[in-house]
Parts: sequence; structure tokens; C-alpha cells
Amino acid sequence: MDNIQEGSYVLLFHTSRKKWLTKVVKGKKMHTHLGIIDLDLVIDLPYGTRIKTTEDRDIYLLKPTIYDFVMKSERKTQIVYPKDMGYIASRTGLSNGSIVLEVGTGSGALTTFMAGIVKPNGHVYTYDVRPEFIEVAKRNIEKSGLEKFVTINQYDIKDGIDLKDADIAVVDLGDPWTVVEPVYDCLKGSGCFVAICPTMNQIEKLATALKESNFTDIECSEIIVRNIEAREGMTRPSFRMIGHTAYLVFARKVYPK
Amino acid sequence: MDNIQEGSYVLLFHTSRKKWLTKVVKGKKMHTHLGIIDLDLVIDLPYGTRIKTTEDRDIYLLKPTIYDFVMKSERKTQIVYPKDMGYIASRTGLSNGSIVLEVGTGSGALTTFMAGIVKPNGHVYTYDVRPEFIEVAKRNIEKSGLEKFVTINQYDIKDGIDLKDADIAVVDLGDPWTVVEPVYDCLKGSGCFVAICPTMNQIEKLATALKESNFTDIECSEIIVRNIEAREGMTRPSFRMIGHTAYLVFARKVYPK
Amino acid sequence: MDNIQEGSYVLLFHTSRKKWLTKVVKGKKMHTHLGIIDLDLVIDLPYGTRIKTTEDRDIYLLKPTIYDFVMKSERKTQIVYPKDMGYIASRTGLSNGSIVLEVGTGSGALTTFMAGIVKPNGHVYTYDVRPEFIEVAKRNIEKSGLEKFVTINQYDIKDGIDLKDADIAVVDLGDPWTVVEPVYDCLKGSGCFVAICPTMNQIEKLATALKESNFTDIECSEIIVRNIEAREGMTRPSFRMIGHTAYLVFARKVYPK
Amino acid sequence: MDNIQEGSYVLLFHTSRKKWLTKVVKGKKMHTHLGIIDLDLVIDLPYGTRIKTTEDRDIYLLKPTIYDFVMKSERKTQIVYPKDMGYIASRTGLSNGSIVLEVGTGSGALTTFMAGIVKPNGHVYTYDVRPEFIEVAKRNIEKSGLEKFVTINQYDIKDGIDLKDADIAVVDLGDPWTVVEPVYDCLKGSGCFVAICPTMNQIEKLATALKESNFTDIECSEIIVRNIEAREGMTRPSFRMIGHTAYLVFARKVYPK
Repeated sequence: MDNIQEGSYVLLFHTSRKKWLTKVVKGKKMHTHLGIIDLDLVIDLPYGTRIKTTEDRDIYLLKPTIYDFVMKSERKTQIVYPKDMGYIASRTGLSNGSIVLEVGTGSGALTTFMAGIVKPNGHVYTYDVRPEFIEVAKRNIEKSGLEKFVTINQYDIKDGIDLKDADIAVVDLGDPWTVVEPVYDCLKGSGCFVAICPTMNQIEKLATALKESNFTDIECSEIIVRNIEAREGMTRPSFRMIGHTAYLVFARKVYPK
Repeated sequence: MDNIQEGSYVLLFHTSRKKWLTKVVKGKKMHTHLGIIDLDLVIDLPYGTRIKTTEDRDIYLLKPTIYDFVMKSERKTQIVYPKDMGYIASRTGLSNGSIVLEVGTGSGALTTFMAGIVKPNGHVYTYDVRPEFIEVAKRNIEKSGLEKFVTINQYDIKDGIDLKDADIAVVDLGDPWTVVEPVYDCLKGSGCFVAICPTMNQIEKLATALKESNFTDIECSEIIVRNIEAREGMTRPSFRMIGHTAYLVFARKVYPK
Repeated sequence: MDNIQEGSYVLLFHTSRKKWLTKVVKGKKMHTHLGIIDLDLVIDLPYGTRIKTTEDRDIYLLKPTIYDFVMKSERKTQIVYPKDMGYIASRTGLSNGSIVLEVGTGSGALTTFMAGIVKPNGHVYTYDVRPEFIEVAKRNIEKSGLEKFVTINQYDIKDGIDLKDADIAVVDLGDPWTVVEPVYDCLKGSGCFVAICPTMNQIEKLATALKESNFTDIECSEIIVRNIEAREGMTRPSFRMIGHTAYLVFARKVYPK
Repeated sequence: MDNIQEGSYVLLFHTSRKKWLTKVVKGKKMHTHLGIIDLDLVIDLPYGTRIKTTEDRDIYLLKPTIYDFVMKSERKTQIVYPKDMGYIASRTGLSNGSIVLEVGTGSGALTTFMAGIVKPNGHVYTYDVRPEFIEVAKRNIEKSGLEKFVTINQYDIKDGIDLKDADIAVVDLGDPWTVVEPVYDCLKGSGCFVAICPTMNQIEKLATALKESNFTDIECSEIIVRNIEAREGMTRPSFRMIGHTAYLVFARKVYPK
């Protein structure tokens, strides 16, 4: 049995559109338009329990997963979406023990997701030049309790970095083609280069740069999620959907003859 | 530096359509329509090295990732695709330490992927009733060296099982609604139920069963990958694509009042 | 040269999101949040002219096409979208001279579109049981000036109708399978049955009914439009899109032996 | 009743993948892998009749629509697909009486479709510089019996043409931005410019050129068709689909102040 502790996080779930991620602190009361939730009362309850707000509305006490932390993360910029994170993991073989270089920490959503997978034997080395992003990213990573598996640097890797033998490098910059060479130097032979690119101009320039460098197995993909409303006798895709977040580019480092 | 050992696997990569996954064995020669590859010569080379076939065609020696093992797995049935695996991981928060129940081992592709993420502290308990699938799955899991993190059982869980406090349960059966109750019993409070369903009828029946049981946060999604051909001055999506593999259904266990 | 007449319609176009369709009437002033547009001033101007509002904002005087009439139609119900209308036209071979049966007039958007194509030698016979819809449809069809090519009936065709030798029948009902037999009787041999169905349950039931009747060449399709934001150096699909409106079902009448 | 005449075309339909479009000629026998079809026997039968091959397989005698002519057209190049044709018609308001300029006749598939809609009062003026395409297009247009409504010219419109007051101009060239000015001159005020562009680079260049000329209401769209296999209890989208044919660009001519 897994009970809610003081100091841990809980996802107060009413519906997929009405949910709140909060730290359990004694004396804290969440005021929502569904009524007040007294956090004192949730301490020691098992995750999964249903409670009531002061207005008698159902709230489920869910244990937040990395998905919940990401979707509820504080953000200064567009985050990487779970659909894209997941494909990055499955396409590159990200797993326990992987050494990851991340260029462009942003709000730390992808950093958090990758740290959760590579721990306890792997590590994510992440770089950003913008101090205001690094602050946000730090807070997001700490919420998930993954800070031990992440090293954040405020640094521009265009000038080259020391990191060697990374299994995977993920680049989330506006001009990813400018770091193809320093990233090459950080990767193991046959290591995986990944970039997250909102525009087709970026993937075109990047794919061209990768082909001209020592990379092979170049793939450009777009991941689309369609939600289906499954209701008895009236199942159909949702009327609205997210049309596009970013393209993903994958390549693998090879050695010249 | 990461060099190819005798007994390890290598992905002989010419293009994304012409590639072979093989075990490095002394004296073995791969006969391909691009010429012969003498595996004696690859031993001790670093991963990422380019060699030539006897017909002077380029072959890159790539270190297979779980993606490569999955795409090249021996299969008796439709496999779960990387796009779907990845979203399962990111949506459920699958990570190191997760305890996973898998109902319907199939060819073991998803089993392998999940084992690679939950290791070293987590475990995948997988069940199938068909002995011929279990044999294939075992071989596939062993190729990736992940057998320590997987327990395969030939058993029909409809009658209930002992497993308790699983974080995640993944069901790949034709009639997933029949196991909603035994799977509920195996999950932790707020643990995640996942099903892989090729048809709209399945997701409708399953979503209805989940709503009638003690599950919340029910989501039905379809993941679509579009490949983009990024070439200078002529970038466009590919003419052909995979239109549909399966829907994914997610839900979380809650306790009745 | 094609000049704007008193009594005709004009599309006052600022951007694709800020546009107004209006009848040109002497003395009328359009009040918009971009300023006032004095319709007296547009009379006799050529279509395509740019004028200014009282707040010096650009307005283009566009000649409304059937697309504009449809998108700006008065509506009591979900309209059929241009993407779906277009595929109905191209898939069935709708063209000048076609005799069309429409079951479920709705707001008359599809009626208007089809009348514009079948005129002057064809005709659309449309049926609805709801008088409040028929009123709206009439107004919409008259705006486009196509009333001569449409006959609207308030009648439930489930009991059968006199119409014979229709080339195309379009059914927009919640339970299209209930009219398979009366529609069959109205169609020419090899004539085309079309249905517009929001849910997968509808297409499944309908396809089953069509297979059991004397129809062949059954196709169920969904048409998806993705908008692309084409801007120099930053071209990408739009972030938001419409995920689903309706499925389209097509079939052709055959004779039993 | 609509009976098959000698000299007319018939679609010999077995399934959507096994169908033949042929002219009915006395003494002709179609040899197929489903057996022989004696065309003498189909003369005077009503469209929609089912006959048998010499191997007792069902053949339905369907009256070909423009869709069938297009899908079975002789082709020297990629044709415009029905999904794209249809949206061109609905988006531009193509209808009886429209005067259409087509730049790039190709195999004449779109020409045929548009002629079928604009007749009897409209006309399609189509231009191509490649005589070998013009020959194919002529044959395709004649098969559909629409040659009266089409004028084909072997000419490069980059140097300007006489045509004035076209309602719609459709450009299917590799470099559509090179004809923006001559096409502008041919269109009526508020007339519709359409281009068919396989690559993202083309739409970017074209949209930029249109913005710099006197065009407004610029839309870039992609039309995607998903086929659904609707079978009782096992309805699902098809495993394979066409991922991309072309983008469509729309704009409307305006006058400078």
C-alpha cells in the first residue's frame, strides 16, 4: 500500500481538464471552483482514494507520474510534448544507464522525463545559455525528485564541451545545425543524435548538415496524437486536436574510413 | 570507446531499408545482395565504423538499440510499434523501478522495451496462454540481454493472479474488457491501466467497462507517425505511410468510497 | 469587369478570421471593431477593390463564392464542411445535370454547394422533417441565388418517395441505415449513395446494411485538412486543427440477378 | 432507365481493386484473371446489372463517373487526386459557368473534373508546354466526352496570355511563383488563384510571392484521406494509407489602392 506523505506531491483529479498538482503541506487548503480541498485530510490516505470538496464534488488523489509533472510543469517556453518524448525514448533506445547530452534545457520537461528513465545508472547533462530558463528547469526537476541524475550547465556548447561517449544527444535549439560538430564529438560511435524542430526549414537545414557530416540513418518524423471519444454507440475522434508541435530528427554517428 | 565483441549483436546498416541485425560469431559470413560481410573482420572495431562488403558497398557497424531489436524481432503476431511503445512510456510514467504487469506477451517486443526502462530495480511480469508465442518472446528478450528483468508465465489471468501493487498494467488481448477486474486487483492505488486495441469496437467496450469499474482519467488515443523526406529544396511528407496500428487506452485505478 | 451592385452580396474581408458577408443595401453601415464600413461607398466598385474603414483599416471587397456562403451560413446544426463537400463532389462525379436526392437538409449548406454544381440542368430534391431547419435552409439557399435548382420538402422519406432515377443520394441523418431501402428505390442503376456520419458506430451499421442490400463499391473515408503556415524560413503546420467532423460512406446501387 | 450503349464506356467492377474501364465495342472480349467478359452481352443492359465472367465471378456494370475516368486515366505524370480536386472545387466555389485558367495540363485529370462542373456555360482554358502531355490529356478528356468545354494550348504563359476575367486559375507547375504576375492579369477582381505543390519549399516561395503581389486570403492546406474498414465488431482505419500527394495554396486577387 502506498500512502500519501506530508511533503510529497499529489494530483487532485476531478476530470482530465480539472486537475491540480500540489505538494502536501499541513494546514494548506486548495481553493478551486469545485470547492475547497483541505490537504490535512489527505495525509496518510492511500493514493487512489476518492475524497469530496466542500461542495461535495469528487476528487481522486492520484500519485503524479512524470507525465503529470510534465503536463503541470512551470514553463517559460513551449514544452516538449509526451507524444514526442515517448518516441524519442523508443526510437533511440533510451534506458537505464544511458548517458544523455541535452542542448537547450528549456523548462526541463524533457530533462525530467529522460532522467526518470536513465536513473539510477545513467545521467543527463543539460546545457542552456539562458539563466531564466535554468531557474525554471531546476524547480521542475526538483519537484520530480530527479536532481541527482541531472547536471545543468549555463553554457553555449557551440564552442565545444568536454563530455565524451554520450549514448544520446538531444538538441532543442532554433539553429540545431550549428551544433552538429560539437555534438558529434560528444557522442559514442553509433550514438544517437536527436533534434526537436518546429519548422520544416529547420529539419531541411539540419538533415543537410547531418548528411554532410558523419551521420547516417537520418529520419525526420512527426508524431500526431488523435484523441478518440469512446462512448457506447457514439464513438468518434475529438472535434479539436493539436495539429503540430514539432518535427523530430534522428541520426547516428559513424566514423569516416 | 565501445568496441564490438565476439558474441555481441551488431546492426549492419546500409540504409534504413537494408540493414541486418546479427550476432557476431567467429567464422560467420553474412551473404547479402550487396555482397558478403565477413564477421571476423568486425571484431574489435569500434561501433560506428564503416566497412565494405565484397562488392565495395558501405556497411556501418551500429550498436543495436532496443528500437533495432524490436524492429528486427522474430514475430508470430503484429508487434507493438515504437510510436505506441513510446507513448505508453511517457503517458504512464514508466521508469526505473516500475513494477509492470503485461497481459498478452505476444512476440515480446513491448516486453523488451519496458524491461529496458524499468531495470535494474523494476520488473516486468508477463502472461500469455499460447506456448508458441512464449517461445518466440523468450528468444527476443534474451537477444536484448534483458531476461533478468522479465518473468514470463504461461497462464490465463482471467482466473486472477497473485501479483500485487503493480505500477502499470499493459493489456494486449482481443477482449481486454474481460480482464478489467483481475488487473484492477494487481494494481496499486492510482496505478495505470493500458490497453492496445486495433479496433474502435474494442476501445468502446473497454472504455465502458472501465467507467463501470473503479477507474478514472480514461483516455483513448491513436498515435500516428508521418515521415518527412527532408531534402534541400524539396522537403515533403512521404507518399506512403502507415495509417493505423492500434488505439491506446489509458486509465487509473481508484478506490471506491 | 465585375462591379458590385446594390442588392448583391459582398464579403468584407480583413483577414481569414475577420470577415463579414453582407447584402449591399443603400444607407447601410457595418459597425465592426475595425471601424465602420459605409456600404453606400462600395456600390459600383469592382470586386477586389480595397477600401478603408473609418479607422483606416484595410477591407477587401470580395465576391462571395459558395465557400463563403457556406462558411457564413446561418446554422441550426453542425454544417457539412467544405473538405467533405468537395470529396462528395469528386468521389461521386457530381456535375452539371446531376439529379440529387438529399435526405436531411439541415442548414442547407451542402444543398447550396450541390445546387451550384448541378445547375442549370440538374436539380437537388431535399427532404427534412424539421420545419425549423427548413426555414433556415431556405434563407441560406436564397442568399446564394440557387433556389430555382432546389426543391425542399418537409417529409419523412422512410415511408418511400416518388423520386426516380437520381444520380446521387446524400443522407445526413442520425440513423442512415433506416433509409437504405427507400433511397435504393430512388437511385438509377449504378447511382451513388453517400452518407455523412459523425460516429464510427454509424458507419459500421450503415456499411453492414449496404452490404446486405444491393449496393457495391462501399467506401468509408474520413477527410482531414491540415493548414500550413507558410512563412519565409519558418513554415510549419498550424498548432491547432479540426480533428474530426464526420466520416463519409459511399456505395453504388446494383441490380440483383 | 439508363442502358449501356455501344460506344459508351462501362466500368467493369469486381472489387475496388479489381475493376476495368472500357469502351463497349461489338466483338470485344476483356480477358482478366477472373475470366473473360464478352462485351457483346452487356449492350442494352441497364447500368448496375451484375453479370458473370466465364469463370463465374461477379462483375457489376457501373456507369463511370468522372471519378472513375480520373482514377483510370492514362497518365504520364502524377495526377491530381480526387481529395484535392474536390477541395479545389469547394474552396473556390467552382460551379456551372466558371471560366477557368489551368496552367500545367499534365494528364488532364483535373481538367476533366473541372470541365464536368463548369459545363455547359463555363470553360476550361488549359496550357502546357509539353506536347507529349497534351496528347495524353486530349485522349483523357475525350473519353469523358468533355472536349467541348476545354481548350488546350501548347504555350508557356510566362510571357503573358490574352485570357481575361477568369474566375479561377489553377497552377500545377514546379515553379508556380514564376507565373503569379501573368495569372494575376488573367483573373477577375477577387478571382481565385490555386496552386498544387508537392513540397513545402514550393508553398513557402509561392506564399511569399503572393503576399508581395496583390493577393489576399492566402491559405495553404493539405488534404488527407483516411480509409476506414467498417466491419461488424471490427471497425478500424486501414493499415496502409497515402501519406501525402500535394499541398494546395489558395489566394484571391485584389486591386491596389
